Amino acid sequence: MRIGIIGLGNMGGGMAANLAKAGHEVMAFDLSADALGRAVTAGCTAATSAAEAATGAEAVVTMLPAGTHVRDVYQNSVFGAATPGTLLLDCSTIDVDSARAVAAAAEAAGFVMCDAPVSGGIAAANGGTLTFMVGGSAEAFARAEPVLGAMGKAILHAGGVGAGQAAKICNNMLLGASMIATAEAFVLAQKLGLDAQTFFDISSKASGQNWSMTSYCPVPGPVPTAPSNRDYQGGFASALMLKDLKLAVAAAQSAGASVPMGANAEALYQLFAGMGGAGLDFSGIIKLLDGSWRS
Amino acid sequence: MRIGIIGLGNMGGGMAANLAKAGHEVMAFDLSADALGRAVTAGCTAATSAAEAATGAEAVVTMLPAGTHVRDVYQNSVFGAATPGTLLLDCSTIDVDSARAVAAAAEAAGFVMCDAPVSGGIAAANGGTLTFMVGGSAEAFARAEPVLGAMGKAILHAGGVGAGQAAKICNNMLLGASMIATAEAFVLAQKLGLDAQTFFDISSKASGQNWSMTSYCPVPGPVPTAPSNRDYQGGFASALMLKDLKLAVAAAQSAGASVPMGANAEALYQLFAGMGGAGLDFSGIIKLLDGSWRS
Amino acid sequence: MRIGIIGLGNMGGGMAANLAKAGHEVMAFDLSADALGRAVTAGCTAATSAAEAATGAEAVVTMLPAGTHVRDVYQNSVFGAATPGTLLLDCSTIDVDSARAVAAAAEAAGFVMCDAPVSGGIAAANGGTLTFMVGGSAEAFARAEPVLGAMGKAILHAGGVGAGQAAKICNNMLLGASMIATAEAFVLAQKLGLDAQTFFDISSKASGQNWSMTSYCPVPGPVPTAPSNRDYQGGFASALMLKDLKLAVAAAQSAGASVPMGANAEALYQLFAGMGGAGLDFSGIIKLLDGSWRS
Amino acid sequence: MRIGIIGLGNMGGGMAANLAKAGHEVMAFDLSADALGRAVTAGCTAATSAAEAATGAEAVVTMLPAGTHVRDVYQNSVFGAATPGTLLLDCSTIDVDSARAVAAAAEAAGFVMCDAPVSGGIAAANGGTLTFMVGGSAEAFARAEPVLGAMGKAILHAGGVGAGQAAKICNNMLLGASMIATAEAFVLAQKLGLDAQTFFDISSKASGQNWSMTSYCPVPGPVPTAPSNRDYQGGFASALMLKDLKLAVAAAQSAGASVPMGANAEALYQLFAGMGGAGLDFSGIIKLLDGSWRS
Repeated sequence: MRIGIIGLGNMGGGMAANLAKAGHEVMAFDLSADALGRAVTAGCTAATSAAEAATGAEAVVTMLPAGTHVRDVYQNSVFGAATPGTLLLDCSTIDVDSARAVAAAAEAAGFVMCDAPVSGGIAAANGGTLTFMVGGSAEAFARAEPVLGAMGKAILHAGGVGAGQAAKICNNMLLGASMIATAEAFVLAQKLGLDAQTFFDISSKASGQNWSMTSYCPVPGPVPTAPSNRDYQGGFASALMLKDLKLAVAAAQSAGASVPMGANAEALYQLFAGMGGAGLDFSGIIKLLDGSWRS
Repeated sequence: MRIGIIGLGNMGGGMAANLAKAGHEVMAFDLSADALGRAVTAGCTAATSAAEAATGAEAVVTMLPAGTHVRDVYQNSVFGAATPGTLLLDCSTIDVDSARAVAAAAEAAGFVMCDAPVSGGIAAANGGTLTFMVGGSAEAFARAEPVLGAMGKAILHAGGVGAGQAAKICNNMLLGASMIATAEAFVLAQKLGLDAQTFFDISSKASGQNWSMTSYCPVPGPVPTAPSNRDYQGGFASALMLKDLKLAVAAAQSAGASVPMGANAEALYQLFAGMGGAGLDFSGIIKLLDGSWRS
Repeated sequence: MRIGIIGLGNMGGGMAANLAKAGHEVMAFDLSADALGRAVTAGCTAATSAAEAATGAEAVVTMLPAGTHVRDVYQNSVFGAATPGTLLLDCSTIDVDSARAVAAAAEAAGFVMCDAPVSGGIAAANGGTLTFMVGGSAEAFARAEPVLGAMGKAILHAGGVGAGQAAKICNNMLLGASMIATAEAFVLAQKLGLDAQTFFDISSKASGQNWSMTSYCPVPGPVPTAPSNRDYQGGFASALMLKDLKLAVAAAQSAGASVPMGANAEALYQLFAGMGGAGLDFSGIIKLLDGSWRS
Repeated sequence: MRIGIIGLGNMGGGMAANLAKAGHEVMAFDLSADALGRAVTAGCTAATSAAEAATGAEAVVTMLPAGTHVRDVYQNSVFGAATPGTLLLDCSTIDVDSARAVAAAAEAAGFVMCDAPVSGGIAAANGGTLTFMVGGSAEAFARAEPVLGAMGKAILHAGGVGAGQAAKICNNMLLGASMIATAEAFVLAQKLGLDAQTFFDISSKASGQNWSMTSYCPVPGPVPTAPSNRDYQGGFASALMLKDLKLAVAAAQSAGASVPMGANAEALYQLFAGMGGAGLDFSGIIKLLDGSWRS
């Protein structure tokens, strides 16, 4: 299958490589010559423009930073170059309104489009083990599944266009709020003289259990693979959590939903980023709460 | 074993019955004649005062509403009546400072004391399936375990005196914040056109997973046993969640911990209680967030 | 002077009338025939399109609901119809990013543009006593001042383009947070047995003093002109406060500022709007806090 | 008039000196010999105990750190030593519940008692220009007024016992929340390119006006006397604001009031204190919000 891919950054680079590895003919484009060079090394063909990557493709995959880039690339490059009927898969994490606007324009121009944001980081992109949350019609999802399958281990149908973005930001808003609440609980426990491991042993089997505690525990020790054990390096950067919280709060504004915990989480991650914590794993916000943070 | 129990309310009544059922000789006391009558029916002997219940007991169990009651009962009734060396088990959920003050006074008077608050509601008290979070020395815990074992299925040693209370309120603060964050995520999902069951299917297997979602899901449907399926009746009342959040925030004040999410959860549960929601299960706060609440 | 005005709603209608009253030749346009009819009655000439209103004008004034409308009207009607060099005055309250984008496009097309959002409600629009916060160059401000002077009593130069919007939303974010904090203080005072008038007498002369207390006091009595005395009718609607808080939080997202109080205020006004309070004066949120709200 | 004063710290020391200066015979006591020595230098007589200070006094004034000290000093020293009928004036800032409990015990023992917390810092204590917010009966207030008048410039009657404390903490809760909201507005303004002085000029005359802005402006420049101009030294320490916010939140817990903004302010001042900001003026929290804080 001939596939165009636009956006070869930390995530898109690994995705392009996995498409090539699966035997697809991959036309890749990125503004960075270095990124493009790595894609060629991984078995892709270099396109000289986004439009060229889309030309003649049976499917186009995009992995871009924000809604404005997605709007721009589709409006100004893909729609004019791709053949009507082509499957368009935007894997970027962007605002729901942009996702729906671009999908509507795609449909009007005769294309079949899905939003398909991912969960899982760089390692999952490289390893082909991403999770895709897909928004689009049943027919579009059926066509998207095998393409996405080359890049991920779980391809989930969230609903109509925009539902993939909605699922991702609702999940990640909950994740961000839960992480801070978990960190608060550990800090309070410690200040009350309760051992962190003991609190973990009790709460992780009780009603306080949540993914942030049992998979990314913000205190070192209880979960050996958690970033807290390596000084909050790697993992899911606070800057990315902040990005998703902004998208969630913006979506709540647009939809008229009250999200007091999500909004508070956004303010606290913004505070942490402002103090210099953007590059740390998002569990590192515990250092702000316990007063040990030094920028 | 001869055991005195003071406080025979919704929780204490079931606990007294289970002590009697386990073959202990139980001297029970409560200010309410009705409560006392039910304890007698369940096999206990009625004491005419808290002091009498404590007299000659090998262990004294208390289950009272708040720190002031616990301080009062121990200072004014138990310490003067019980034999030094007696095991004192306070199963009330109270503030950490009171728990530690009473335990220190008990030790000074020659007693062995544990704080042992429970998780699990009235059904668990009646069924003898409570979880006890125990604060006290290793020796005290060893003595407490068989007594508590007649009333619960899990007896956890949280650390020194006060650690039981600390574990409970840290866990429940996290629980309260997680429930609101979970409810927000479902409300936002719905307003973005994402089906609740679909969001549950995705998020409950992803990084948004938490006990509030997978055991007490605030929207009806995904978790059939959750109170949301019976119009938020039964379960864990918002009033009790509010009580625990108050204890957690007060403990944070005392310990100098910053708990922005916990404090916000307290304010929102207080708002919900003020609007008339105190009697509903704590997942019912979703009705405030989605605007459907009518008092 | 020949002036085109586009947008004749509750605010724009009064503004158009005041421009005509000041002796200007006013070409007015609105999609609503009723609104247009009222403008004609007030001395304006009806234009058949936004473009016609802008044609031949020395100044164009717009008063529109949101950034998307402003972008659309300028891009698709004004820029093509107005003579280069014309003074463009957008009095809408919109997002800073849109204000700056439209102003940049205006400048590129040879126009002189200011953002000039207002404070003051419908009565001030009708009475010509609005306050204008103006963003634009010194030269643009000098040209704008006499035009705006026909519609307002205070014309303030906030800085370069976008600064008018910035001033308005920063002020109103502070206003929204202050109102809720003031309402909380009165509710707490009352629950502690402190008379509202007494608390007002003390705090309004002390460090708790703020405009929400001394001009729009959320409890009836202390400030006779405040909307609280007429069951929260009239005044500045909660829906409009919510709109401004959304703009402020969106601007904070875009600028990377942490606004925990502003974000919390937004969540609470959204909660109040969701419960049916959108139409009440924004001081009416006290009814949510004291539990007396019934939708 | 013979007056006993107990507690001669930063505040109490100046108050004792002003009582002596006004011609009263002042029996002073403090656990610190240094503090006692300064009081003697200022014209007081040293008492060897709290009880001695109260013996034979027509009025007893206390200025102590917290409710526990107030309960202790009155129960264990004053009530036993002072003559029934003596006027008791507690000027400490403490929790409302303690204030009411001690006043009730005082009344039961035949005394006349007022809570009379102050606003104004060390300079006002030394200068005799404090503001007293007084809770007590009309008769008690009438007797208290001349005594307090020697130490302050404004003696306000807030209501029955406890109302003085209630007025102070409601006011200061509002103050703390307003300061953070004001700081947020300045930080956002700055990040949006709006000059701080310009924003001040606009907002201080508009609906954003509040005492924190116009008397203690958190950015240097607009208010020359504000602590922001001397690197946030002096003024009203964040630690003291945090103490008052804790009292307010505790009172809200006890009274069943929802205070989302107050609770959020408490969490943020606790965060700031945890990062090392306790000693700075409370307007210094702007350094946390703008990311410039280095501990």
